[in-house]
Amino acid sequence: MSEVYAARRTRLRERCNAGGSAAALVSRPANVRYLAGAAPHGAVLLLGRTEDLLVCSGPPDDRPTQGRPDEALPVRTLPGPGGDPAVTATGLAADQGAESLATEDHHLTVVRHRAMCSVAPALRLTDLGQAVEQLRVVKDEEEISCLRIGAEIADQALGELLESILVGRTERHLALELERRLVDHGADGPAFPTSVGTGPNSGRRGHRPTDRRVEEGDFLSVCLGATYRGYRCEIGRTFVIGTSPADWQIELYDLVFSAQRAGREALAPGAACRDVDRAARQALDSAGYAENLPALTGHGVGLEIDEDPQLAPAAMGKLDACVPVTVEPGVHLPGRGGVRIDDTLVVRPEADGGPELLTITTKELLAL
Amino acid sequence: MSEVYAARRTRLRERCNAGGSAAALVSRPANVRYLAGAAPHGAVLLLGRTEDLLVCSGPPDDRPTQGRPDEALPVRTLPGPGGDPAVTATGLAADQGAESLATEDHHLTVVRHRAMCSVAPALRLTDLGQAVEQLRVVKDEEEISCLRIGAEIADQALGELLESILVGRTERHLALELERRLVDHGADGPAFPTSVGTGPNSGRRGHRPTDRRVEEGDFLSVCLGATYRGYRCEIGRTFVIGTSPADWQIELYDLVFSAQRAGREALAPGAACRDVDRAARQALDSAGYAENLPALTGHGVGLEIDEDPQLAPAAMGKLDACVPVTVEPGVHLPGRGGVRIDDTLVVRPEADGGPELLTITTKELLAL
Repeated sequence: MSEVYAARRTRLRERCNAGGSAAALVSRPANVRYLAGAAPHGAVLLLGRTEDLLVCSGPPDDRPTQGRPDEALPVRTLPGPGGDPAVTATGLAADQGAESLATEDHHLTVVRHRAMCSVAPALRLTDLGQAVEQLRVVKDEEEISCLRIGAEIADQALGELLESILVGRTERHLALELERRLVDHGADGPAFPTSVGTGPNSGRRGHRPTDRRVEEGDFLSVCLGATYRGYRCEIGRTFVIGTSPADWQIELYDLVFSAQRAGREALAPGAACRDVDRAARQALDSAGYAENLPALTGHGVGLEIDEDPQLAPAAMGKLDACVPVTVEPGVHLPGRGGVRIDDTLVVRPEADGGPELLTITTKELLAL
Repeated sequence: MSEVYAARRTRLRERCNAGGSAAALVSRPANVRYLAGAAPHGAVLLLGRTEDLLVCSGPPDDRPTQGRPDEALPVRTLPGPGGDPAVTATGLAADQGAESLATEDHHLTVVRHRAMCSVAPALRLTDLGQAVEQLRVVKDEEEISCLRIGAEIADQALGELLESILVGRTERHLALELERRLVDHGADGPAFPTSVGTGPNSGRRGHRPTDRRVEEGDFLSVCLGATYRGYRCEIGRTFVIGTSPADWQIELYDLVFSAQRAGREALAPGAACRDVDRAARQALDSAGYAENLPALTGHGVGLEIDEDPQLAPAAMGKLDACVPVTVEPGVHLPGRGGVRIDDTLVVRPEADGGPELLTITTKELLAL
């Protein structure tokens, strides 16, 4: 694995040098993990002029779920509590003779940035921008394999829940049980707070579970994901409770299902992100639900659950092969509930069979 | 409750005006909740020259566990996605005729701060510092009552776990079960990730649960807390598994217990924070464990689990009445394990009976 991290750092260094900076300081935890193999709490990565260093505030956490630091990367640990690794790393960059240092200004606070300026007044701090986030968009097969295993775990946890009695249980209990099952099946933990919505809460994106109990006739929507070796996937499904769904439930479900399928089918290398969004949104728009739609219909996933690209009406850019994204249109009708269907897929060229579906739980409307 | 929030905002406004700023922008979520009753995702609070406003990025979350926004406070919601409430609020401050705006530079990123500067170039941005955090240190009886209920919930969850079979279960399962019980008993959720450490992992501060199973003869240390109406408490206990603790276990336990008692007994209005730390640390130091001790032996709790004051060797300042703190010395011996004992208490004057213990689970060494 060491070569993988070294190659990623080389790519970042080339971008920095092209931007006029001999050195860079990476502080955002997911970016540190991407480039160094692990992101111990508070650690920063210095891409120095003469040497790269992982600067940590304390001894590294040795749990495997936190990643293993690249063994080829020297580690510097602050001597006592209270210090800021970013400030220490800035001093080290200056000691290495760097004249400018590119920093993650979308992550550093104003106070930290000021302390970094003070420790090395001759060093010019520039903005690295989202350079590492951009490198992270296209995944290698090792990363995709982690996402695939995470998706299998999420499918298993969801499948087991569906075999149990649901009526009378609260959203909060169902969510906790799903999270326990994720861990049982080998996840590092949930990829994000599990969402369970019943009745009027169903179909709301990011709904946080309440004490409402599942009732006959409800829509039940569930959104969960596993973290596996740091990689986070997402699956969302909507079910009906009881033997006979109402007509409006069947109609709404079919509509969202066809929208989600259109979104999935639009995934291809070279497709504009906004066109994928439009594909998923169109049927819902023309059925009169324009007001009830989420701001985005999908997003990238990886070391964070919400990464680039965004699938949204104003999104710029095109998809590449090996980019994992969610496709998750939904409609929520205030007071009544709604439907969301959410898959994680990897963009693949037509020649390789088209988009690879990672979350394989059925999307038929199940009556439970 | 509205008067409580208004009074808190008045106190902050007085501090800002004394510091030369007519307006302030509060962005740190716990600070927004303290002053506005709730902190919807991304929301900021503007203390304006002529009007206070809660600026939100979307419709407020109406779950009671997220707090209720002060009804006397006008709410401004951004029209579409992608905007930054902090930038909008900065523009509103300028519109209200403010010449300077105090901001939370320890929370704002460099990029957000730059965007705020750009939207109102004539407005001078100054650093509010930790003014709101300082207001939050001394709690009112309503806040203490939330902490007290949270501590009861944590005591209940822990008590139930102790009645179950422990040998053979993993740290991760025990932690998940504790978190489920917290929610069962009415917590909003865990106050922080529940820590369960067995055998060589026992006694490590902030240990994250692994797949290690509880074995006969182990120390088992558990640290958990409930969030209740936003307020977070903490309890930690160490047990031995099996009928007869080894001599070294009894000795180490007695030592940490006496250190923790010394810390608790040192809590009084006017006591220096470093003296409380020293009281808890002294016995452990002189027993030769100076190298095995954590950087702090306690800290404030409230809307966040780790607040001011810090009980540490270099801590400045003194305790006041009605300040809730943890007292949590511990010793961890690499490869063998250790002991931590952790209570949440409220500093009270001698005349009121001295420190009020919120977490009442026994601190006798239980053999389970």
